[in-house]
Amino acid sequence: MKKSLVALALMGAFAGAQAQSSVTIYGTVDAGISKTTGTTAQIGKRDNNKLGFRGVEDLGNGLKALFHLEIRYEPDTGTIEGVTRPLFQGQSRVGLQGGFGTVRLGRGLTAFQESITAFEPWNGLPAVAGFQTNLQVAGYTSDPLSPAGNSGNRFSNGVWYNSPVWGGFQFNGTFGTKDANGGPAVIGRGTALAPQYAANAQASAHPYSVSVTYNNGPFAAMAATERNAIETKLWSVAASYKPTTALKLMASYQQQDQDHTLRVNPETDAWVIGANYTMGPGKVLVGYGQKHPDGVLKTKEISLGYEYSLSARTYVYVDVSNRKLPVPVTAASDSSLNHYSLGIHHNF
Amino acid sequence: MKKSLVALALMGAFAGAQAQSSVTIYGTVDAGISKTTGTTAQIGKRDNNKLGFRGVEDLGNGLKALFHLEIRYEPDTGTIEGVTRPLFQGQSRVGLQGGFGTVRLGRGLTAFQESITAFEPWNGLPAVAGFQTNLQVAGYTSDPLSPAGNSGNRFSNGVWYNSPVWGGFQFNGTFGTKDANGGPAVIGRGTALAPQYAANAQASAHPYSVSVTYNNGPFAAMAATERNAIETKLWSVAASYKPTTALKLMASYQQQDQDHTLRVNPETDAWVIGANYTMGPGKVLVGYGQKHPDGVLKTKEISLGYEYSLSARTYVYVDVSNRKLPVPVTAASDSSLNHYSLGIHHNF
Amino acid sequence: MKKSLVALALMGAFAGAQAQSSVTIYGTVDAGISKTTGTTAQIGKRDNNKLGFRGVEDLGNGLKALFHLEIRYEPDTGTIEGVTRPLFQGQSRVGLQGGFGTVRLGRGLTAFQESITAFEPWNGLPAVAGFQTNLQVAGYTSDPLSPAGNSGNRFSNGVWYNSPVWGGFQFNGTFGTKDANGGPAVIGRGTALAPQYAANAQASAHPYSVSVTYNNGPFAAMAATERNAIETKLWSVAASYKPTTALKLMASYQQQDQDHTLRVNPETDAWVIGANYTMGPGKVLVGYGQKHPDGVLKTKEISLGYEYSLSARTYVYVDVSNRKLPVPVTAASDSSLNHYSLGIHHNF
Repeated sequence: MKKSLVALALMGAFAGAQAQSSVTIYGTVDAGISKTTGTTAQIGKRDNNKLGFRGVEDLGNGLKALFHLEIRYEPDTGTIEGVTRPLFQGQSRVGLQGGFGTVRLGRGLTAFQESITAFEPWNGLPAVAGFQTNLQVAGYTSDPLSPAGNSGNRFSNGVWYNSPVWGGFQFNGTFGTKDANGGPAVIGRGTALAPQYAANAQASAHPYSVSVTYNNGPFAAMAATERNAIETKLWSVAASYKPTTALKLMASYQQQDQDHTLRVNPETDAWVIGANYTMGPGKVLVGYGQKHPDGVLKTKEISLGYEYSLSARTYVYVDVSNRKLPVPVTAASDSSLNHYSLGIHHNF
Repeated sequence: MKKSLVALALMGAFAGAQAQSSVTIYGTVDAGISKTTGTTAQIGKRDNNKLGFRGVEDLGNGLKALFHLEIRYEPDTGTIEGVTRPLFQGQSRVGLQGGFGTVRLGRGLTAFQESITAFEPWNGLPAVAGFQTNLQVAGYTSDPLSPAGNSGNRFSNGVWYNSPVWGGFQFNGTFGTKDANGGPAVIGRGTALAPQYAANAQASAHPYSVSVTYNNGPFAAMAATERNAIETKLWSVAASYKPTTALKLMASYQQQDQDHTLRVNPETDAWVIGANYTMGPGKVLVGYGQKHPDGVLKTKEISLGYEYSLSARTYVYVDVSNRKLPVPVTAASDSSLNHYSLGIHHNF
Repeated sequence: MKKSLVALALMGAFAGAQAQSSVTIYGTVDAGISKTTGTTAQIGKRDNNKLGFRGVEDLGNGLKALFHLEIRYEPDTGTIEGVTRPLFQGQSRVGLQGGFGTVRLGRGLTAFQESITAFEPWNGLPAVAGFQTNLQVAGYTSDPLSPAGNSGNRFSNGVWYNSPVWGGFQFNGTFGTKDANGGPAVIGRGTALAPQYAANAQASAHPYSVSVTYNNGPFAAMAATERNAIETKLWSVAASYKPTTALKLMASYQQQDQDHTLRVNPETDAWVIGANYTMGPGKVLVGYGQKHPDGVLKTKEISLGYEYSLSARTYVYVDVSNRKLPVPVTAASDSSLNHYSLGIHHNF
């Protein structure tokens, strides 16, 4: 019996069921109970919750094709992250890896945002007790022209390059197109009627992000600079040192320059110091940091955390944190916010 | 060649492709043709359509970590369930299981809603011919302060506990936070201008749901009570008996008390009786039930169904049902609705 | 220890983790850099990006149950396809296959749209350089009463039948219900105040699509006809011939009749010719086509593409294309659009 065209298409489509392709499902479920001054107790998260699909194909001669598609979600309500963010908020990238390094296309964390987390005591977790988003990157946003609600430490429409490692050094670069992405208007130095960037505006300059990392035994360091689609610039330096295998000390400094969109006080600087100490299945996290937009009072945060591993993939945690804001968020609220959380973190 | 930080991150991210983690994909596709009095023939579903991801990790000493992430969708249009429901409408929970029982955090069916389906002749399917949502639970909604369109038999922001089984008895409890969840205003005893619950209101009392189930050979029973975020209360008792292995008889009674939000006639009671009879690959389902909001005429439903198994995972079905409403839905429509459906149900 | 009802439910739900069911994950990631006359360079796609889940269950006696659930997404921004399309935009179908052929229910490409791609030089890819959507199908839309933004070459609420192959011939049919699907109003022969089809209208006639395909050694052909929910009709013939195994020549002709909704000039005809030539890992694609709505000037397109396979699953590509529109899209834009793209295509 000969097969016709659609018959062949059906065969092809269904035959694959026997031959699973090399896709790995991975992810994180993190849920806990938390309480912050002035709010009711909540079921919430300490880490980003992920459900990802990834694969690597060996093309021979040291060349590999690779991809990542990473869903983000909220376990307490079952929605995608932030309700309105992209389905693959984590990342959606495809590329090639070889002797020349790794080249990828799509959407993901910028070179700076991906490098800095290694120098943050909560390892870049978006925990309230952590320092990354608000303090460590000086409140900087990598993608201000994406739709409101998208998290701001990624580039859409980007090209990524990671070099091979030479003598402990690695170069990482992310380059964005000017392509408009459906974002909101940005008033900037304009007015509400004539915003500096209209809704769905293109970038006024090519966004880019570069970092150089250095790793040598117990010592690691990073220097990075980034410019986003509305020409806000940031530079950062960071270092970590492990005097013993159990103890990691770390520090970072950042400076953000919003001169292109702010008439007054466009600079913000921030620094974070911290330590991780491992004791058998337990790990202590401690950190302190400040953010100082010029002309504005400082934000200060101090945090203490403890993780207890039930396995290589699963741990329970408790965080205690205090954040002092320059002014209360609302007239009725406090400017000194205590935060407590207790939960479980499971990788799969 | 030494690896730098991002190099290590890339390694870690890609190396995993060789070692599939212990994630199981599971789900249901159910599609059929159905026709109800006054509407055109449709491609629709009889069961919830699911695409789920779950895993169990053995932590040693009888302790396990487990999670479920369960997408719901509409096969006739390819959208997520109800177009606007959460991506993981089925459930999104993570927890620990051990000698103490099972503790989970996140979003899922309440203890009551999860227990009652065993006493419904369509096994809790949301089929038009089934009795669960509208009749069996007396029209009660577990989550009235979630966004409009979310199905109402789950708690968001919940903690679940299932006890071990003692002499056939098991205790199941679900406890919700008061955390606001972006839901609509509920007028209740207020007015349109001053609703009893404003949009995105917090719960006025902690929602909870508890059930006790009993299982002893051919006999099973359940007693449950639940209070939702707007203080509507429900209690329910149910039992089933299998005189032979082929025949299961079942009955349930529910009473809903909306006194907190309704000035008049706040009570609704409902009962459902039914049977399942298995004959080789075939199974007959039959049920009858009534719902009686006080001060309002009764809703009555009678249904007959047949399932024919093509395998342990796949069956075809036909349902015939009649529902008598107190009044027609619209002036032009009938208050006696006949429903027919024919379809295929496939688990994977 | 006896297990109670919920205990058993929990067991069932978790036990499955050891026994992976026969689900195959499959998909495509395609990302590249492209540039079209009058727009900025972009990260975009040449093919549809897919993440699918499919399975086949052998039911014995030559009978099989099968399903496909296919997510579509945009790799450059991480969103689902078109931001607002259904999650399973690719398809969501379940059915049975046996000696009688294949019957499926749900949503997917119509028989015509699925058959015609084999006669298009870009194999039906939605690439700018390709011909399928705009030129090859004469601008026809299979599903005009679905929500705005849904792609228009599928039926929702459909039944699919593919016959066995008899002497090289196969019959393929898709039949839709009249079920309303939440779509926008269609003015048609009405007015803005009284559109011919109101928002969320039902179909005025049963949509259907049938194709007959023929396949005999180097020769293949297709004849198809389709009618959509607003009674636009289309017929199409197409053929391909392979004088050598490396060369495939192809041609198609289509005629669309919108008489039911357009008062004037309701007919559009279109034709496309093309060739594929394979040289080792390389493949050259070339095509030319015209679309001619009556009373309107022609649209003409010429395209040249090259694909270089890095493996059976991965290739890199470059496309060059020129499209001449009857009039410029905007006063400021050109009516002759050049397009260039360069990217990577990876199946998993």
